[in-house]
Amino acid sequence: MKQMNWVFDSVKKPNEEQRHIAEQRQGSLTKPPGSLGRLEELAIKMAALQNQARPALNRPGISLFAADHGVADEGVSAFPQIVTGEMIKNFVSGGAAISVLARQIGARLEVVNAGTINPLKPMSGVIDARIAAGTKNLFLQSAMDEDQLMQSLQLGRDAVKRHIEEDVDMFIAGDMGIANTTSATAIICALLGEAPAMIAGPGTGLDSAGVAHKAIVVKKALQLHRLENSQVLDIIRCVGGFEINAMVGAYVYCAQAGLPILVDGFISSAAALAAVRINPQVKEWMFVAHRSAEPGHSAIVESLGLTPILDLGMRLGEASGAATALPLLRLACALHNEMATFDEASVSEQLND
Amino acid sequence: MKQMNWVFDSVKKPNEEQRHIAEQRQGSLTKPPGSLGRLEELAIKMAALQNQARPALNRPGISLFAADHGVADEGVSAFPQIVTGEMIKNFVSGGAAISVLARQIGARLEVVNAGTINPLKPMSGVIDARIAAGTKNLFLQSAMDEDQLMQSLQLGRDAVKRHIEEDVDMFIAGDMGIANTTSATAIICALLGEAPAMIAGPGTGLDSAGVAHKAIVVKKALQLHRLENSQVLDIIRCVGGFEINAMVGAYVYCAQAGLPILVDGFISSAAALAAVRINPQVKEWMFVAHRSAEPGHSAIVESLGLTPILDLGMRLGEASGAATALPLLRLACALHNEMATFDEASVSEQLND
Repeated sequence: MKQMNWVFDSVKKPNEEQRHIAEQRQGSLTKPPGSLGRLEELAIKMAALQNQARPALNRPGISLFAADHGVADEGVSAFPQIVTGEMIKNFVSGGAAISVLARQIGARLEVVNAGTINPLKPMSGVIDARIAAGTKNLFLQSAMDEDQLMQSLQLGRDAVKRHIEEDVDMFIAGDMGIANTTSATAIICALLGEAPAMIAGPGTGLDSAGVAHKAIVVKKALQLHRLENSQVLDIIRCVGGFEINAMVGAYVYCAQAGLPILVDGFISSAAALAAVRINPQVKEWMFVAHRSAEPGHSAIVESLGLTPILDLGMRLGEASGAATALPLLRLACALHNEMATFDEASVSEQLND
Repeated sequence: MKQMNWVFDSVKKPNEEQRHIAEQRQGSLTKPPGSLGRLEELAIKMAALQNQARPALNRPGISLFAADHGVADEGVSAFPQIVTGEMIKNFVSGGAAISVLARQIGARLEVVNAGTINPLKPMSGVIDARIAAGTKNLFLQSAMDEDQLMQSLQLGRDAVKRHIEEDVDMFIAGDMGIANTTSATAIICALLGEAPAMIAGPGTGLDSAGVAHKAIVVKKALQLHRLENSQVLDIIRCVGGFEINAMVGAYVYCAQAGLPILVDGFISSAAALAAVRINPQVKEWMFVAHRSAEPGHSAIVESLGLTPILDLGMRLGEASGAATALPLLRLACALHNEMATFDEASVSEQLND
């Protein structure tokens, strides 16, 4: 366990003076106070996190963590398990949603193979870091052992370190892993004490019978592992996934290193919740990009106390929702930085009551 | 009236074959069907409107219509009337929200002075088309006469023609006019039969007493003009504004010319509703960019039957919400155009039930 103790190290504090300066500035810009709505709030938070009077998003970094899940054996996904590896190829050959979005937003994109069932041929853009041939089936046993948990958390930390070396100014994690909504559902239920039937959703496209089956698989798994009052690390070892746990490690390390985080959808939010349960201050570094169409997502978002930026009915994962929201954060920063004040523009201010 | 008859001319039809082709393509791309949510719907609609298999948003065009309102005399705004003219200068000198946003999204931006109370010195980027020194006070008399109504509608058509000459592929209208939420509220109440107390909101920042006063002003104006069963053109002549009516003319002409429309917030949506009441098919050419924080906006959106793309609590006007939503439409098109199909990427498709 000693090698995992870094996750409990303290995180950086956002700069409250910059937050205050940014709030003042928003009140002086040529618009009725508050009329840019959440764009004002986003810019103010960015200023506090980046410790800059003029926050900027020049270079977002996306790590796409991919891994397989033993629980796919229980028939909990609409897609065959081989798709995880096939999609890794699609990510780097440029045809996946996140490939298109990363190009559009000018993001640094890296794909981390955290554990596909089969080894893959070396590919440019893919970091081969397979921990194992997928997790064990969490319906029958712990998904991974302590050593694998440690490795998966470190994969996330290593990814964030690479982005920081490349001057990334916003971190986005994405997921790919057939059956990973089942793992995420189990994590969420264990952390929130929610019933699996309340959290399980269609994922990539289950019908209602499939969703009911998934909920039963999760319910039985939670009974098997007796996770009611467990530590977060035990929960994500027993029912997590290599890619999900890598996201947990990445989020915790972002907060320790002072890099803002844009959380994607259902899987990412499960990881975000776990990271925040490890260290509540991690939350201050997070924006939630969108409300997923996966019905259980709202429970996580509510528990995190963060309001999603978008609500477009997306449920693809692979960081697609976060990449879609990124231009809005950029516009929020540009407005904050480039708008004229009432004084500068010689515009009359609000009448006194 | 003859010179206004063009608003009743038929509008173009979206291409249903392109819509069908786009729907088929969305189903073949490497993602679970429907998992990009509204981004799929937006791309499909763009394909039908642009009559293109690969829709694109290379050059959005923004017309910012500015004018003053006689009803400002009734104390219905938190800002002095002189701000309309001051903001025109701010728009073209680059310090207003829409100036920043237009630069960020690469839009063609033009400002049309449709009638400030005072003449303004010539400025690069401002088209001086002052119909009068603001409208008359709609609380006491018709805001404008028939000739002015005709002129205001034509201002909008002329603006769209300029954009089309410059190869604009999406039209955005913005508004600036102190007291124009009062005019918009009157239009909406007359068109929807809603009580002013249900539609009137704080605008640029009225307190609750100010909102109540605004509602009474609108209520009495509606009684004065007896607009219950009036024609749309009579409604916007009696209680409209030069900039609002220009937007009505612009929207109608966009649909006639086949140029997609991205509707901004409260004022724009009042104009959009009027345009749709003149010709219901105009609606097919519209996207609604965002849900305004102005409480009456939801009633318009519901009546239009269009779902806003964003909900960020914005209430600035001047096309700011539309410009903020534009990058999402661009991403929707890029995903549609550039993602690989399952066949192209050799990715396995969904399992059969």
